[in-house]
Amino acid sequence: MSALQTIALDVMGGDHGPAVTIPAALNFLRTSPETRLILVGQQEVLQPYFKTGLPTQVRIQHASQTVGMDELPSKALRNKKDSSMRIALELVKRGEANACVSAGNTGALMATARFVLKTLPNVDRPAIMTAVPSVRGQTYMLDLGANIDCTAEQLFQFAVMGNEFVRAVTSIDAPRVGLLNIGEEEIKGNEHVKRAHELISASHLNYIGYVEGDAIYIGNTDVVVCDGFVGNVALKTSEGVAKLLAHLLKQQFRRNVFTKLAGIIALPVIRRFRREVDPRRYNGASLLGLRGIVIKSHGGADVLAFENALHSAKKEIHANIPDRIAHQVAAHFITHEQRAAV
Amino acid sequence: MSALQTIALDVMGGDHGPAVTIPAALNFLRTSPETRLILVGQQEVLQPYFKTGLPTQVRIQHASQTVGMDELPSKALRNKKDSSMRIALELVKRGEANACVSAGNTGALMATARFVLKTLPNVDRPAIMTAVPSVRGQTYMLDLGANIDCTAEQLFQFAVMGNEFVRAVTSIDAPRVGLLNIGEEEIKGNEHVKRAHELISASHLNYIGYVEGDAIYIGNTDVVVCDGFVGNVALKTSEGVAKLLAHLLKQQFRRNVFTKLAGIIALPVIRRFRREVDPRRYNGASLLGLRGIVIKSHGGADVLAFENALHSAKKEIHANIPDRIAHQVAAHFITHEQRAAV
Repeated sequence: MSALQTIALDVMGGDHGPAVTIPAALNFLRTSPETRLILVGQQEVLQPYFKTGLPTQVRIQHASQTVGMDELPSKALRNKKDSSMRIALELVKRGEANACVSAGNTGALMATARFVLKTLPNVDRPAIMTAVPSVRGQTYMLDLGANIDCTAEQLFQFAVMGNEFVRAVTSIDAPRVGLLNIGEEEIKGNEHVKRAHELISASHLNYIGYVEGDAIYIGNTDVVVCDGFVGNVALKTSEGVAKLLAHLLKQQFRRNVFTKLAGIIALPVIRRFRREVDPRRYNGASLLGLRGIVIKSHGGADVLAFENALHSAKKEIHANIPDRIAHQVAAHFITHEQRAAV
Repeated sequence: MSALQTIALDVMGGDHGPAVTIPAALNFLRTSPETRLILVGQQEVLQPYFKTGLPTQVRIQHASQTVGMDELPSKALRNKKDSSMRIALELVKRGEANACVSAGNTGALMATARFVLKTLPNVDRPAIMTAVPSVRGQTYMLDLGANIDCTAEQLFQFAVMGNEFVRAVTSIDAPRVGLLNIGEEEIKGNEHVKRAHELISASHLNYIGYVEGDAIYIGNTDVVVCDGFVGNVALKTSEGVAKLLAHLLKQQFRRNVFTKLAGIIALPVIRRFRREVDPRRYNGASLLGLRGIVIKSHGGADVLAFENALHSAKKEIHANIPDRIAHQVAAHFITHEQRAAV
């Protein structure tokens, strides 16, 4: 059992490195004492954090290099063979860890993970998925930036992977799957999206058809499938809207002494509201379709956010995500092949 | 001067038709008594609204057909030659009106407008543009759904058109123009976006380079250029986020008697906030790149929202948008050709 609960941490990744990742790891252990952590990074940098000794569940794995946040993926792959990111992924590859968590640069993490772990059989490309809050709970969305241009087959694979993930980590047995599109008739969708629509329609997924951007947050769908360009824009746009609204609301409460007073009275309510929509609660995107669990934390994550990424890793280990996805993709692929043969 | 201020209204368009468009038109005239309106629609439907006679600035133009909100653009174009939408556009074509406003279906409006009015020289495809609120004021965004796949040249034309529009209707002399992209290095952007980046970089526009989705609302750019698929998803996603946040905030204020009390006290502030971000204030998207002014109102617009679409038309007439865009596109096209010849 204990071997099933080891997480390899790229301690050096992210904007803040060990200053965030180590306190987050220690906080995480407080609520998950059964999990083991391998902290991967430069020994001399990590040592000072553990002057009084390492907790029993923790071991340090030295890695002499770090991948910069702006480093090109291809360069990281070629020149950083002893990076904390790479070593953390290799621990998963060798079965010494069951998941890798990194706040390092997304492109490098994706490229290195594909190289070290490889994709699952019949998966063309991994996808990045995250949950976002919705009116009715949560919506899972993929891809969020790993793949710019997607074929219909890839979008179909994303649907299968997202569907199985949601089945594994929630109580929803037949998640509603939607394909992101725009509302205009006739000019609707590009060719890839139209073909993906046909593929998903013909599958056994609980496919609800095309959905528009607002569906992500309205909650009439559990999984939203799109290519990485569109998904990334949608996610970043959402961040922008939330920031704007927070800014304008604050501005209104600051207008004069009466609004300030109203603000003080409403503060507990607004604080609770902010906690509920706190993006840190949703930190920890999954790289799906790999032969291993890889969680990408936001680069700017603070301690609380990074801790949530560790919890995501733990949840995926328990749910045995890669195996479940492998089975589902295989099942769909066979059906698909068989159908083609008929 | 009066000939410069005639707006042709597709009275039948939108989810509510004359029940919204006529009261909006009458409200509009109260603040814009110098503008003339041609109400285009079925005489027998419109007559009952004017039992006591028509205002002097208003005349009715009969059109026997209406375009349905779900009608395919190609069918509307072929079968609805006497639709209120088509006739309103033809009034602009013949110079009897200076702008057309319709809440009818976007695809049909775009197709009919292109057919009736034609695009400006050197403009491949018209684009839909709207303003959205930002932390620092407003951001203008195009395309929002008229074009699914855009070439680099089209994106470049959108940049030129958006730039000139903002120069014409605001006091900004050199609008900051950004090209929507995603943040990942190396896999950044698709080929069209990369080539558009080169084209805009080489122009005299105040180009600030790639921007991510959050930039739309942060306000570090005045014009955001993207293809219609991405733009439409971004806009709809924004609506979804705003609805979710409004829902959750309301929920928090309804939790118990104390939060309800806090809600009552904060109500004036929240009302003011809601007014400020009211999407109706931003109703009235521009179809840019045509030989005439066409404003698309949201299909679900209410009276206030539709009235704003009429004000947008008036503003574009005053600013002489099509002529200004024609000049700019021609100038850029020549420079571009000349550059190519060197």
